[in-house]
Amino acid sequence: MPAANPILIPELRVMLAEGDTAGLREVAEELHPATVAEFSEGLDDRELWQMLDAMAVERQAEVFPYYPMARQVELVKAGDRPHLGALLEWMAADNRDDLLRELDPEFVEDILPLVAKAERHDIRMLLSCPEGSAGSLMTTEYASLPADITAGEAITRLRSQAPDSESIYYIYVLDPERKLVGFVSLRDLILARPTALVADLMQRDVIAVRVDEPSEKVVDALARFDFIAIPVVDDQRRLVGIVTHDDVLDAVRQDATDDAQRIAAIAPLGESYLEAAIISMTWKRGVWLAILFATAALTAMVLAKSPITHAWLIAFIPLVIASGGNSGNQSATLVITALSTGDCKLSDWPRILRREFALGLLLGGLLAVPGYLLALVYAPSPMHALVIPITILCVVMLGTLVGSGLPLLFRSIGLDPALMSNPFVSAVVDIVGIVLYTGISVLLLG
Amino acid sequence: MPAANPILIPELRVMLAEGDTAGLREVAEELHPATVAEFSEGLDDRELWQMLDAMAVERQAEVFPYYPMARQVELVKAGDRPHLGALLEWMAADNRDDLLRELDPEFVEDILPLVAKAERHDIRMLLSCPEGSAGSLMTTEYASLPADITAGEAITRLRSQAPDSESIYYIYVLDPERKLVGFVSLRDLILARPTALVADLMQRDVIAVRVDEPSEKVVDALARFDFIAIPVVDDQRRLVGIVTHDDVLDAVRQDATDDAQRIAAIAPLGESYLEAAIISMTWKRGVWLAILFATAALTAMVLAKSPITHAWLIAFIPLVIASGGNSGNQSATLVITALSTGDCKLSDWPRILRREFALGLLLGGLLAVPGYLLALVYAPSPMHALVIPITILCVVMLGTLVGSGLPLLFRSIGLDPALMSNPFVSAVVDIVGIVLYTGISVLLLG
Repeated sequence: MPAANPILIPELRVMLAEGDTAGLREVAEELHPATVAEFSEGLDDRELWQMLDAMAVERQAEVFPYYPMARQVELVKAGDRPHLGALLEWMAADNRDDLLRELDPEFVEDILPLVAKAERHDIRMLLSCPEGSAGSLMTTEYASLPADITAGEAITRLRSQAPDSESIYYIYVLDPERKLVGFVSLRDLILARPTALVADLMQRDVIAVRVDEPSEKVVDALARFDFIAIPVVDDQRRLVGIVTHDDVLDAVRQDATDDAQRIAAIAPLGESYLEAAIISMTWKRGVWLAILFATAALTAMVLAKSPITHAWLIAFIPLVIASGGNSGNQSATLVITALSTGDCKLSDWPRILRREFALGLLLGGLLAVPGYLLALVYAPSPMHALVIPITILCVVMLGTLVGSGLPLLFRSIGLDPALMSNPFVSAVVDIVGIVLYTGISVLLLG
Repeated sequence: MPAANPILIPELRVMLAEGDTAGLREVAEELHPATVAEFSEGLDDRELWQMLDAMAVERQAEVFPYYPMARQVELVKAGDRPHLGALLEWMAADNRDDLLRELDPEFVEDILPLVAKAERHDIRMLLSCPEGSAGSLMTTEYASLPADITAGEAITRLRSQAPDSESIYYIYVLDPERKLVGFVSLRDLILARPTALVADLMQRDVIAVRVDEPSEKVVDALARFDFIAIPVVDDQRRLVGIVTHDDVLDAVRQDATDDAQRIAAIAPLGESYLEAAIISMTWKRGVWLAILFATAALTAMVLAKSPITHAWLIAFIPLVIASGGNSGNQSATLVITALSTGDCKLSDWPRILRREFALGLLLGGLLAVPGYLLALVYAPSPMHALVIPITILCVVMLGTLVGSGLPLLFRSIGLDPALMSNPFVSAVVDIVGIVLYTGISVLLLG
């Protein structure tokens, strides 16, 4: 059940051509900013600026961040400077920060003088937080209060802070040095007697993240404690910003997509699949395909030296190495996702390896049975056919142990498990698989 | 910067042994419920119930849902009935629903009479929503108001609704038939003149989901519009519940993990990796390994019929089929994640296939070069060696087209693309790859 009465591009074009500013403004005020952005996305840059100009600047600044990032950048470059200055001044600090990070640093320096001085300070502070840190997700627009006022006074003060705050549902209580000493929810303030002191209402056990901690910390804390927002502090525990639930949700979705892409041996696109340029996709996929190719070339070299010459043994090569690769891929994915969601920690490694050993034994044993039956069809004798189930059992166990062990190893030396595991798992499992297959054949068949 | 002064199990045990109810209660009231659950998780069931009993029942009901689900079930089974009744009555409706869904239906019927009648109605309604529907994520505890009262009256009424509402930051405006006509944020109410009418303050363009729509709709709407909660309505547009941001965040994380597991050919565990029983993991991995094994067996049968006998051509078999498999895996993962995050739609299929055709050409061309160089080392002549680059180009293009095409095909016939694609991509690419390799060898070398 989406928003009512969506408006269509042709209707919009008629309003724009007629200069129907009042009509455009009404449409833009009535609908959710995300809906306004969605239905107007099909306009060209000039038309879109004309539509934005019909709105009050506050509304413009609400709608603008809902365009896809590539379009925002295009619009900024096409916009004239007085418009840009006003827009940037009114945009929420975190959305503005996301946009400015996508622009040329020189272009940013060029347009910064258009923005009021106080805002410029905030912009520089946020831009200075490294990508992937808690600081890069936060906004500086939070609501704060001192501890020594009453609930009634607090609500009065909030009325003046509300227009400039991203969220007023949690209010952070600061001491005179701006250190975070507690927080109170708007719900608690509304429920309290108006004469109750904030100091008595507030919760002192505040969960906060440090501005330089990785953004995963923010995600984990917010997911664990079900907060609407989480405060970000500096190393003196002074409040510098908040990260709100909507930005965390976006970050979680982006992280999950990045992880899935890394597991499939793709350097994360970092943008929408259909928007990514073919040439950058070729690079992001090609570099990992090349690494995988190099490991496959090693497999070919090992196989070229293998004394396996019976046609029926050759026919089973892909089946044998695929069994190891598939079980290894399963183990690697399970361990990588469990590490990244916090379901297991590096210190759980003995338990993980024990589990994967048991699973390798069970899964390898299960696959060995149909493997033996199939081999009986092609092998010259039941004794010869035994090579296949024995190899399958060994290779599946190899797969589960290498697949679970490598992500743990990479994590322990500080590398991203998702980034490195897949090519190495396949390299190790394929090559050792061929060696095992050859060895077992020679041992059993001479 | 986690919560301050975490308490340790030995200290807790001392307090429990001494019957220090006041001390336990103080600890439980001071910390965030998630923290209380975390530090007390190590107690055994009897001790844990003793600790829970030291708290007020409201607090108990807040802490309880933060234990892992398996522990909650264990505690419910170990708890005595008067305790259970009180706990279930005070728990938030959505957390209670999650718990009851994990219990035996007979056990649920057995304990339902312990709960007050009004709550029982809510419980039955929520339990009747199918798993994976918007209704299964929602809670019935929302704040609502009529349109014809003033902002001042609204705040007074909210004070009485607040203790029973999951969130009072969005208040839904209902007509006398409980149909959803608008919503107003607490922020707007606080900012408004106390004499302003709710009807004039509310936004009428309410985005809602229907109770029987899939939960992905809820996630997409909340992510797109940055809401704290989204209303759920029946087919008459009567409000039946809300889904809050924290439950959506959990659902997103779970969905992403499920998808990653499906892409790696694992039936989603649906629980933490370390908590899953070995036997259920064996089944969830084994069933897909068996399907992949069957496709590999087909490859073996095709290969057994292949007239390829030159040792050097045999050595290149794994390399050639791995190139197709890897590029196919990349394409499938990109399309599956793009479909599931809404980055692309089924109707984009011509664009997707065009892109993947171009990428197949580029990536295949890039890999053909080192393929040829490697083949020159082993092949009897440069003419013979040409088999390898030509096959690589064809197989990589096959991989990108099959890898992107199959998820689209599965989606178009209503199947989950993540569930089915991987085994089929590898089956098609491996088998067709061997056929192509054989064909190209025979064509070029006779």
